[in-house]
Parts: sequence; C-alpha cells; structure tokens
Amino acid sequence: MSEVRGFLFPRTATGRSSLLPPPPWHYSGDLLTVEWRTDPAAVAALLPEPLEPVHDDEDPGAVALIFADWQSCGDDLAELDDPVRLQYKEAFVVVRCRWDDRVWSRCVYIWVDKDFALARGHLQGYPKKLGSIHQTRPVTVGRAGPRLEPGGRFAATLAAYDRRLAQVRVTLTGRSESNGFVNGHPMVHHRWVPRIECDGKDALADLVTMRGRDVELGPAWAGTAEVELFDSPVEELTALAPREVLGGYWRSVGTTFAGGETLRP
Amino acid sequence: MSEVRGFLFPRTATGRSSLLPPPPWHYSGDLLTVEWRTDPAAVAALLPEPLEPVHDDEDPGAVALIFADWQSCGDDLAELDDPVRLQYKEAFVVVRCRWDDRVWSRCVYIWVDKDFALARGHLQGYPKKLGSIHQTRPVTVGRAGPRLEPGGRFAATLAAYDRRLAQVRVTLTGRSESNGFVNGHPMVHHRWVPRIECDGKDALADLVTMRGRDVELGPAWAGTAEVELFDSPVEELTALAPREVLGGYWRSVGTTFAGGETLRP
Amino acid sequence: MSEVRGFLFPRTATGRSSLLPPPPWHYSGDLLTVEWRTDPAAVAALLPEPLEPVHDDEDPGAVALIFADWQSCGDDLAELDDPVRLQYKEAFVVVRCRWDDRVWSRCVYIWVDKDFALARGHLQGYPKKLGSIHQTRPVTVGRAGPRLEPGGRFAATLAAYDRRLAQVRVTLTGRSESNGFVNGHPMVHHRWVPRIECDGKDALADLVTMRGRDVELGPAWAGTAEVELFDSPVEELTALAPREVLGGYWRSVGTTFAGGETLRP
Amino acid sequence: MSEVRGFLFPRTATGRSSLLPPPPWHYSGDLLTVEWRTDPAAVAALLPEPLEPVHDDEDPGAVALIFADWQSCGDDLAELDDPVRLQYKEAFVVVRCRWDDRVWSRCVYIWVDKDFALARGHLQGYPKKLGSIHQTRPVTVGRAGPRLEPGGRFAATLAAYDRRLAQVRVTLTGRSESNGFVNGHPMVHHRWVPRIECDGKDALADLVTMRGRDVELGPAWAGTAEVELFDSPVEELTALAPREVLGGYWRSVGTTFAGGETLRP
Repeated sequence: MSEVRGFLFPRTATGRSSLLPPPPWHYSGDLLTVEWRTDPAAVAALLPEPLEPVHDDEDPGAVALIFADWQSCGDDLAELDDPVRLQYKEAFVVVRCRWDDRVWSRCVYIWVDKDFALARGHLQGYPKKLGSIHQTRPVTVGRAGPRLEPGGRFAATLAAYDRRLAQVRVTLTGRSESNGFVNGHPMVHHRWVPRIECDGKDALADLVTMRGRDVELGPAWAGTAEVELFDSPVEELTALAPREVLGGYWRSVGTTFAGGETLRP
Repeated sequence: MSEVRGFLFPRTATGRSSLLPPPPWHYSGDLLTVEWRTDPAAVAALLPEPLEPVHDDEDPGAVALIFADWQSCGDDLAELDDPVRLQYKEAFVVVRCRWDDRVWSRCVYIWVDKDFALARGHLQGYPKKLGSIHQTRPVTVGRAGPRLEPGGRFAATLAAYDRRLAQVRVTLTGRSESNGFVNGHPMVHHRWVPRIECDGKDALADLVTMRGRDVELGPAWAGTAEVELFDSPVEELTALAPREVLGGYWRSVGTTFAGGETLRP
Repeated sequence: MSEVRGFLFPRTATGRSSLLPPPPWHYSGDLLTVEWRTDPAAVAALLPEPLEPVHDDEDPGAVALIFADWQSCGDDLAELDDPVRLQYKEAFVVVRCRWDDRVWSRCVYIWVDKDFALARGHLQGYPKKLGSIHQTRPVTVGRAGPRLEPGGRFAATLAAYDRRLAQVRVTLTGRSESNGFVNGHPMVHHRWVPRIECDGKDALADLVTMRGRDVELGPAWAGTAEVELFDSPVEELTALAPREVLGGYWRSVGTTFAGGETLRP
Repeated sequence: MSEVRGFLFPRTATGRSSLLPPPPWHYSGDLLTVEWRTDPAAVAALLPEPLEPVHDDEDPGAVALIFADWQSCGDDLAELDDPVRLQYKEAFVVVRCRWDDRVWSRCVYIWVDKDFALARGHLQGYPKKLGSIHQTRPVTVGRAGPRLEPGGRFAATLAAYDRRLAQVRVTLTGRSESNGFVNGHPMVHHRWVPRIECDGKDALADLVTMRGRDVELGPAWAGTAEVELFDSPVEELTALAPREVLGGYWRSVGTTFAGGETLRP
C-alpha cells in the first residue's frame, strides 16, 4: 500500500491530479447583485433544522441573486498561466436565517460553470450545480458595454440544461456604501453526503460556517433592478418570485478562503 | 424550521431541485474498452491504505481505459423526455487491487461531461472530474461509421481543460466472451470529504463497494487496440503508459444502481 | 505569391487547414421527425422570390421539424479516428414551395453544434446557426432508453443562446413506409452573401439545389407526436405553431453529398 | 412569394431571425498580442494571388498572434441586455503582405467561440473556425489576477477539437506607444465561396478590405513574451514557429464596423 496525497481526489503519490489544490484559494471577481422581497413562507420552506426564519422585523422575505465573474487560484498562482483553469462564472441565491441566536446568510441555490468550482462548493456546503452564466462587463472604450457610471446598464443570465432560469438587469444610479445586505452575514451551510447504502441516511451531515479573509473591496455601485425567473422541471426558483424588487449593485471583490469551521459535527 | 427533502442538495420541501433523483438509477450505454500492461509500480503507487497490489501472478500492471456513451435516468424515467438530462459520456481508468483477501477493481481516474454524473460519482467514491469525451458510434447505414463486424474501426478521445489527454483505437476482429478482465471485480472506493477546517483531515473517509444489479449485456466484440496518453499540468495519466497493449472491446451494457455497501466506516 | 489549396478557407499550401475537406462527404445518422400543419400564411411569409406557396390542395401549411444525430466525414474517412470531428447534431425546419412548375422542399430554419457542419450548410444554402440539440437514442439493453418497437418513447430538444426553443416527443406505434412527406422533394436554397460594403446588396445570391446520392435507408417507424415551440428575441419559430400535429417518425439514414446544382446564378 | 428581410439568413418578414443584425456593429474588448519572427518562406506560403510578401527590409517573417476578449453588439445595443449574445472570444494570426504597391495586414488563421462572430468573420473575409479561447483578465482587487502594471503576468490559450493549439504568456514591463506593428495596416481578405457544384471553382472570390471607424484606444502596455504552438491533424500553426519572439502587448480597444470595400470583385 502506498501513501497518496492531494487535497481532494484523485489522490496520487504527488497530489498533482487532485481536482483541487490545497487552500488557501484566492478569488478576484465582479459581482452583480439583485435583491428583492418574496413571500417569507417561501424562504422559510428552504430552512431545514436547526435553522429558523429571521424575525418579522428582520425582513424574512429578503432574497439576493448574485452573479459573479471570477478568477480564482491556489496559493502558487499556477492557474494565472492557464486561464481556462483560472476563470469561472457563478450565480447564487442567498436568504437569511437564525440559529444560535444570530442571523446568518444561507445559500439555497447556486450554479457554476467549472468542475473545480463545483467540487469546492460541495466541500464548503454550497449546493452547486452546473449552469451557463453570463454577465455584462463594464468597458472603458467603445460602445459595446456600459461604463461604471450613472446610467450604466448591466445584465446577467442563468441557464441550466438548455433552459433559461433567470435574467436580471441593473441600471446604475450612483455610488453606494455596500453591495447589498442579504449576503452580509456569516454563511451557514449543511454538508450532506448520503450513505452509499442510499437508505435515506446521510454519512455526513455537518453544519459549517466559512468566511473570506483578506477581503479587498472595490467601489460599490447601486441602481434600479429588474428580475425575471423561469420554470424548469428540476428547479424551483420561481417559488421565490419577487413581490418587491429592492435594488441592484455592482462591485469588484477580492477574497481568500483558507478553511471554515464545523459548527455542529 | 422546515422539513426538506431530496436525495442530494439543494434540498427543498418537494425534493424536486435535488441534483440527483433518489436511486435506483438505470443505465444503458455502449462501452469501448482498451486494456494494457504498465509498470506494476505505477499501479501500486495509486493504491492507498488498506489496499494492496494484486500478486505477481495476478497481472499487477493491468490497466483498463473504458469509454462509455451512456443514457441514465431515475426510476420514473422522466429524463427520457428531456434527453439533455438523459445522456452523458464517461472515460475511466481501472486497475485491480487486493483487500480483505480478495481481488477488487479500483477506479483511479475518471471524467464525465454532466454535473449529475459527477455528483453521482462522488457519492459512489469515483474521483470524477469533468472532461470532453467522444466515442465513435456503430452505424447500420451509410459510410460515416463502422459496422459491428470484423474490421469495424472504433475510436475514442478524452480531453480536459482544453488539452487532449487520451485517444484510443480499436479494430474489431470478432466476437468475444467478455469485454475485458480488469473491470470485472467488485469495485472498492474511498469516499473522501475533507473537513471544512482544511486541516489535512477528512470529515468522511469511508471505504465502500458497489455493483450494478439487473445487468443486461449485449454481444461483446474484441479487437486490436492502440493507445496514446498525453501530459497535462494537472493529470498523471502518462505515468500509466502501456508496456504492452492487450486488446480492445466493444459492448452494450444495461445496469441499475440501487445502493452500495460501506465496507469500513 | 503562392498557390494555396483547400476546399474552404483557410487555404494553405497543403490544404490541410481547410475548415472542410473536399466532397464527397458521407453521412450516417438517426432522424427523429415531427410533422404538423400551421397557418399556410406563416409558411408563405418565409418564401422569397422566386418561390411560391404550394397549391391549396398540396397542404401549404405542412411543416416538418427534423432532429438528426449524425456522423459525417470526408472521403478518406479520417474523422472516424477522431470522433469529436465526426459527430454533430442538427435540428431543422422544412416547408414546401413551388418554383419552375415543381414542388420543392425548403429549409427555413436550422441549427447544428459544430463549425464544420455550420460552414457546410452555408455552402449548401442552409441558414444554419449554432444550437444545443439532444435526441433520445434507442437502446438494446437496460432501461435507460426506448426500444425501436411500438410504445418506444423518443424525445428531442433544441436550444440556442441559453433558451429552449423546441421540444418534441414521439411514441412509436409501428413500422412505416416513410419518415414523412415534407422533406421528400429536392431542396431549393438561396445562398446569400452580402457585399462587404453592407449596402443592402448581395455579392452572391444564387438559387441552388442539392440532393444526396447513395442513399441508404433503415427501417422507418411512425408514431404519435407532441410539439412545443418557445419564443426568443432572435427567433421566430413560434410563428409556425401547430394547428394540427400529423405524426412523428424515426429512421436511420445514410447518404453522400458530392455537389449540387446552380438553378439560377 | 413574399418579401423577406434580414442582413443575413435566415431571412423572414421581420428580419428578426437573421444570424446578424445590420451593421454598424460596435466592439469593446481587451487584446493580448504576441509578435515574433518566423521563417519568411512560411509567411509567403500563405499569400495567394495577388498578394506578395513584403520586401526583405520590411520584416517579411513577422507574425502576430492576437487574443481578444470582446463584447460586440448591433446599433440598438440590444445584446447588452442578453450578455450571452454580447460576448465572444477570439484568437487570430496576422502577417503582412504587399499588393497594389502598399503594405497590408492579412489574417491567415482565426478562431472564435460564437456563431455570430463566425458568420460575421466569413462575411468580412476572415477564415474563422470555432475554438476555445481563454485570456487572463486584469484585476483591481484580490490576488487572483494580474494588475495592469510592470510585472503583471497575462496568459492566453487556444484549443480546437479538444486539442491545445497555442499558449502565450506576457509579463508587462511598462507603458507603450502601440500594441504591435503587424496588425497595423488595412486588412486585405479574400472572400471565397465555392460553387455548389463543388467543381473546384468559386462562386465568389472577391478581394476586400475593411477597417474599423470610431476607434477608441486605451493605454497600451508592453512586455516580454513566450509562445508555444502545438500540432493537430487539421491545423498548421506550427509551420509559423517563432525564430525570435519580439514582445507582447495588452490594450483595450473600441471600434465600429460599418462596411468595407471591394478591392477586386
């Protein structure tokens, strides 16, 4: 028998084949966020034990849909020389909840377009699927894109299995203190791995939290927003349909992930 | 707090959003297999504790590279009406090992092209990554494909992150009893999930086995084979380079997965 | 100055880089066809000069939507050894028209998923776009697919730019003489290449016809059909919405293309 | 018979289905350029009649490989609201030639990743194929990308049909007056459309030129460069292998295309 290495599988003598390099993982990206209020019962229905809805005076129907155009890499920055392994896109839905007498952010749906991002999310407790995600980039020359200035018009779309699932538009109105409030708390995730027996029990079901370190934030922009959600036989996004759209945001974000914390094994 | 359902995440009140439907999962596909002998030390280097190489008289350098063009679905067969969710392609490398006084098959590398197949594999202990896989289909009319008959020429290729990793060719010589011997034992897999703390320890590291049930086999064809393996900064396939190519096979296979067994928690 | 070769661009001293090998091109594939009647005015609106609608007693509202899962290759069959260059999928809409006192088939919309198929179509006068196309394959073992027998349930879907555009289902009822009537005439196509001046004039606007040779047909199956068409900002498929669905068909087809004929330069 | 509209096919009563909107087309993008000297004979071999190599004192072996991360749209900017139709990536190889007593730039190979860009290129005389193209983006926050400053390390890769064809790296050394000299002349292209008869003759073979208008240039950066070219059965990039790498450049470019000029019908 041999000693094998690698943060994740496949593990080999060198560790080189691992789907993920060891943390820390560094991220730099542009985030387009839209926030709205949905039926609070639709949010509550997505909060399993031990999570509870936030209180009535804490905006229990608040939802954020966040698109991100990321570059990310391991600590040796090797991916910078092979950008197909550096870049991925992401769309995720965040709500808030209560547990242990605190408010947490909770990712209820999320899609990415690369396998390393998918596996990394599963490790962190994000319920990631693959999707096709596109997001307008700001430009500094020419007419084929918005400027980061009032009137700048940004859009983003999400599809999976050849069906459009969501599309949003944000028209910037000016600078902002933040890029939204729904995703502003520590995350609380379940990591669920069913037993190989497929007997309805989980071999792993820990409750975890994670937060970026070395967070570096660019200037935030706010604007008016539009949201459209579409149905699919294997998705339930439309159950979170907006009652009131709150606004949209654009911001560049840099962060590093170096591990989280098991809240409850 | 709410009751959430779903075999896998994301879990919701209905379970409809789960990346995987509950087992049983049914599979029908065409397999193109190539087998060769490599340096037995290269195989041994991929066998972590408690696995041991097979004995010297058991062909310890034997390797199979298997391409599969699958359709698969849940027990309600819903995917048959939405073939983008029905079909996926796969390429995987199998070696053999010993544990508990028996010979097992072991998948050391594997690539698929859909997220449901990736997640299903991780659940089963397959170290799946995403790849681009293509495999010649036999035809019954026209000239743009081989017939299932002596002289029929089949090929398959694997790429990941925009690099060709493997290509094989098989020229059929005639009917066969089997479609290879390397993948003929029960599978033994490790399921590894690192702790969220990323402290070098695993939150889950069970040893599992699984086997199809209701296996239905089409006629097997054998032939001569060619194999080419290519390098990548994040792959180690070339460490298993052929010393002697043993042969190739084509066969249609149907099977059902309804759960495996934890060998060691 | 040098002599350059190649059936299509880029042309080089060897011709090896040409996006297309020289004809003949061989095709082997499986076709899933659905036919319906739409508003005859919607068909007429797609027939430019010199084409005319078929007569009232010739079923002027007839439409076929045909999905095809192809392998195709040049005359040296080189693509058989590199299946990523061998295979493509296609969905196309055919109506009929009159010109020169005859009835012709006319492809009004078509999508494929590889560049060689796109360029080949443009050469032949097919108005091809890229799309994502999936089509259920019949199986001979296992449960994850239909058999070619009464009750066999086939589906196909088309998407482009992350929007589902069409989905069809066919449930086989039995063997058939043909696989439809709409696509049964010689094709008449316009080949339009605008002048580089983009002044509203075409540098090329010939009227051409083409037909396969060495056609080899597998057994045809017929069945009941369902059709759903969806909207997009850049498509008009829904203008051809069914008033009456006529039926569906499945058949394997082999053919060779070795050039067409200019009807009107 | 009906009147049909549309800059390109498919043409309909509204023109909405056309694969391309009518010009002008606006472009905003980031270009990563690497320039080198190859064997001048390899350049000359790619110059068909009436093009001639540039003179010996005009650097006849100069080659540029340019990667571009584009957004582009029609004059109504509709694509800004649907970014999957707005963005594409491109890699192209440019050499220089003489004709009519002037020096021209000439694109000898080019790959893009969307159908609208492919069709637009064919209209303009670019010999476009589909490829998979990735290019490091500069960042302003975080560690997962280079800054636009001395030491910033950019990379780009090109693949087609699951084979890596080229990869380049540029390490910025400082600001620059230009972003290269090879692509600095008016373009001269052949537009070749074979006759449908496939008899070795072209139905269209005009010689055209085109140039952007309303060009808006961001600051240019120069740096040291590395280039690797790889082989493929259907490509000849390696025939242009570097003898001497001249340098690399990064620049944002905005431009508008509103039609070119037929030099020789």
